[in-house]
Amino acid sequence: MSDARLAQQLAFLTEIDKLKSVVRATRLCDGTRRENSGEHSWHIAMYAMVLAEHANRPVDINRVIKMLLIHDIVEIDAGDNPIHGNHDVAQMEVIEQAAADRIFGLLPTDQEQEFRALWDEFEAAESNDAIFAKSVDRVQPCVSNLEVGGASWIEYNVSYEQVEQRVGVKVAKGAPALWAYLQARIRAWFDAR
Amino acid sequence: MSDARLAQQLAFLTEIDKLKSVVRATRLCDGTRRENSGEHSWHIAMYAMVLAEHANRPVDINRVIKMLLIHDIVEIDAGDNPIHGNHDVAQMEVIEQAAADRIFGLLPTDQEQEFRALWDEFEAAESNDAIFAKSVDRVQPCVSNLEVGGASWIEYNVSYEQVEQRVGVKVAKGAPALWAYLQARIRAWFDAR
Repeated sequence: MSDARLAQQLAFLTEIDKLKSVVRATRLCDGTRRENSGEHSWHIAMYAMVLAEHANRPVDINRVIKMLLIHDIVEIDAGDNPIHGNHDVAQMEVIEQAAADRIFGLLPTDQEQEFRALWDEFEAAESNDAIFAKSVDRVQPCVSNLEVGGASWIEYNVSYEQVEQRVGVKVAKGAPALWAYLQARIRAWFDAR
Repeated sequence: MSDARLAQQLAFLTEIDKLKSVVRATRLCDGTRRENSGEHSWHIAMYAMVLAEHANRPVDINRVIKMLLIHDIVEIDAGDNPIHGNHDVAQMEVIEQAAADRIFGLLPTDQEQEFRALWDEFEAAESNDAIFAKSVDRVQPCVSNLEVGGASWIEYNVSYEQVEQRVGVKVAKGAPALWAYLQARIRAWFDAR
């Protein structure tokens, strides 16, 4: 094993430490602060591991977990785009592609290609694994919001119908039983406001 | 799928959100703050994914990643014990076992057993997967310390020989090429003090 290869791998692992400083709209379940994209990535990998049985179609849970571990790394350059915020989707895609080029490009070529293919698959949201991974990524903020009394729903002035359109449709596509369970609770929360 | 099962799974996933509030001795690579055990768990899962080829013996990288994702969950009750700190090992084991009982016990029984077995295997540090997982867990703070100018080595007044004994032996056991690469750099850092 060449030192050059290890140097590339460690440079990548050091660079992605910055994901711990990318702040998301979602708050911790105790409300004390916003979560960062590093700890979020851990949490949704755990979501996938625990909730794998609720996937709508057969998935390779090991691929889903890897996909979720790397899915937000581009935010180191591109920042987080809250689902209920406003941003230019086309422009953001250009920025995220450049981020993927730069950051995955720190790795040895074989690993760059492997990680990039996994991230491209997640972004395309067409394979069974990616569809389930997207469900998990979308559902975790809902669980946190229910715990903490609304949080980003209130902050972004979101209606129940918007949660249904922006989140529910995707969660239901990958994990329908999970969405059915949460949908009732989310609707009740909005009805009680 | 019963609602009771989903309720247990979501209760577990909400409970482990607390891992994001357990603070470790290690600092972020930019030195701005200490890292928490949630983001640490993400980072070392990434370490395992990138560095798998350096494992001394054949490992199932998917099991290693799952092991690392759950390895620190007991710290929600037990807190983090810095490797260079002082703590009563026997007493800490009792506290961590009770934490594992409580937290993994939130899951449906089949998942409780699966997660507990994986955590027990990590703690025992005897299987190839666990030995490599332990290497990865130990090596990440060294990389951060080199980035940030010593950090926990200075804070805990650690000598090069202590790093070798407490960290090097374990990293070398699971990933000898990785330790050989870092050892030279760590020794140079201590020699330059």
